[in-house]
Amino acid sequence: MTGTATFGFRDVDPREKPRLVRGVFDSVARRYDLMNDLMSGGVHRLWKDAAAARLNPQPGETIIDCAGGTGDMARRFARMARRVQARRGGEDARIFVVDYNAEMIAAGRERDVMPEIAWAVGDAQRLPLPDRCADAYVISFGIRNVTDIPAALCEARRVLKPGGRFLCLEFSRPATELLQKAYDAYSFRVIPAIGEVVAKDRASYQYLVESIRRFPDQRAFAGLMGQAGFKNVGFTNFTGGVAALHQGWAI
Amino acid sequence: MTGTATFGFRDVDPREKPRLVRGVFDSVARRYDLMNDLMSGGVHRLWKDAAAARLNPQPGETIIDCAGGTGDMARRFARMARRVQARRGGEDARIFVVDYNAEMIAAGRERDVMPEIAWAVGDAQRLPLPDRCADAYVISFGIRNVTDIPAALCEARRVLKPGGRFLCLEFSRPATELLQKAYDAYSFRVIPAIGEVVAKDRASYQYLVESIRRFPDQRAFAGLMGQAGFKNVGFTNFTGGVAALHQGWAI
Repeated sequence: MTGTATFGFRDVDPREKPRLVRGVFDSVARRYDLMNDLMSGGVHRLWKDAAAARLNPQPGETIIDCAGGTGDMARRFARMARRVQARRGGEDARIFVVDYNAEMIAAGRERDVMPEIAWAVGDAQRLPLPDRCADAYVISFGIRNVTDIPAALCEARRVLKPGGRFLCLEFSRPATELLQKAYDAYSFRVIPAIGEVVAKDRASYQYLVESIRRFPDQRAFAGLMGQAGFKNVGFTNFTGGVAALHQGWAI
Repeated sequence: MTGTATFGFRDVDPREKPRLVRGVFDSVARRYDLMNDLMSGGVHRLWKDAAAARLNPQPGETIIDCAGGTGDMARRFARMARRVQARRGGEDARIFVVDYNAEMIAAGRERDVMPEIAWAVGDAQRLPLPDRCADAYVISFGIRNVTDIPAALCEARRVLKPGGRFLCLEFSRPATELLQKAYDAYSFRVIPAIGEVVAKDRASYQYLVESIRRFPDQRAFAGLMGQAGFKNVGFTNFTGGVAALHQGWAI
């Protein structure tokens, strides 16, 4: 771990970051999905649908939804595996939602009626899961909140079976300057204002916006994945690079 | 699930029990280990040592410490596997502490400096772990707090590898009437009083004592294990049956 960690635009002691991030998500947990809709005009749902389609969950697969929060990705995976299962049969998929934040997990579990999904509060840097147990590991809008990103990538590699896939959906860098400027104006002015009005919590949404800017761009993140041992690493930009889906294989 | 669950001597709606039990452990988390020492005169440590010796953790084994709370069993397992590893080599053991209560896990994680141990807040009735992943499953003074005990036993069986061992350490029924009387006097009068003085929380310790009385006796619990599919089920009484260690195999 390096000597400092980022918390939005602040550099903080790495030992402090988990507590600070937990404060943000404790604060936003109950309105998290609603806020995502308002902030992105619903576009985050399309990104998530596209990421889930890329994963293409199958009956009998074990899928880790890391930083899975309220379980919106996990529910997508379960529904998709069920559709395949209805056509061709097979075992139930098994989906583990792991999130550092107990409030987010509690909010997800309250809504959960899908027996394929099991919930855990746990640390992406030390997953409470055995080696080589999963067919896929997905982290969606979560990895930028992790204190030690290389450690989380190594853990993802550890828990994947040989041939297992790693998918990371995250905010990234818009590909054109024009789009970057429009996006900056929107995210620094509009999003904290929406956060204040709807969630009564401007500071948490200010953190979310700043943490996006501090996160490595597409190529830098692909480089970190390669260093963690993933093969055939690539990414797809969504909405001109506002978000990106990174993919790699544990071989 | 049956129509009612027990909460100490009260019959409660099964949907309510998790919240009630969580309240107890939120309340006692920080002083839990100290209180156990005071209440049992340190004897709980001998019982736990005996249970860990029966388990005999080996390097490279995957061990689930369910309802593992602050991790006192998990640390025993890690130390024992290290001693064997120092003599004969082998991989690190891997120990997963799973507990329903986030405060207990937080209290354990703060003290944790052992990389063999990973922590999760999760539900014994729906473990966030894949099928057949563990060499052993241990639940120590935890199962009587679970709402649906047969469901937790089925989950234990699911996550164990073929040949994996199930161990359950729990308060039980003293074998003689004289001991039962002495124990009743101690637990109904002395323990809640200690709870009040040390932890300022008489009600939570009153719950602990009552929940022990409501728990099935040695033979009844062995029967539940058999119904869940465990083979060669047996038990050993400690301190004349004040506690008992049940053992069974997933075959």
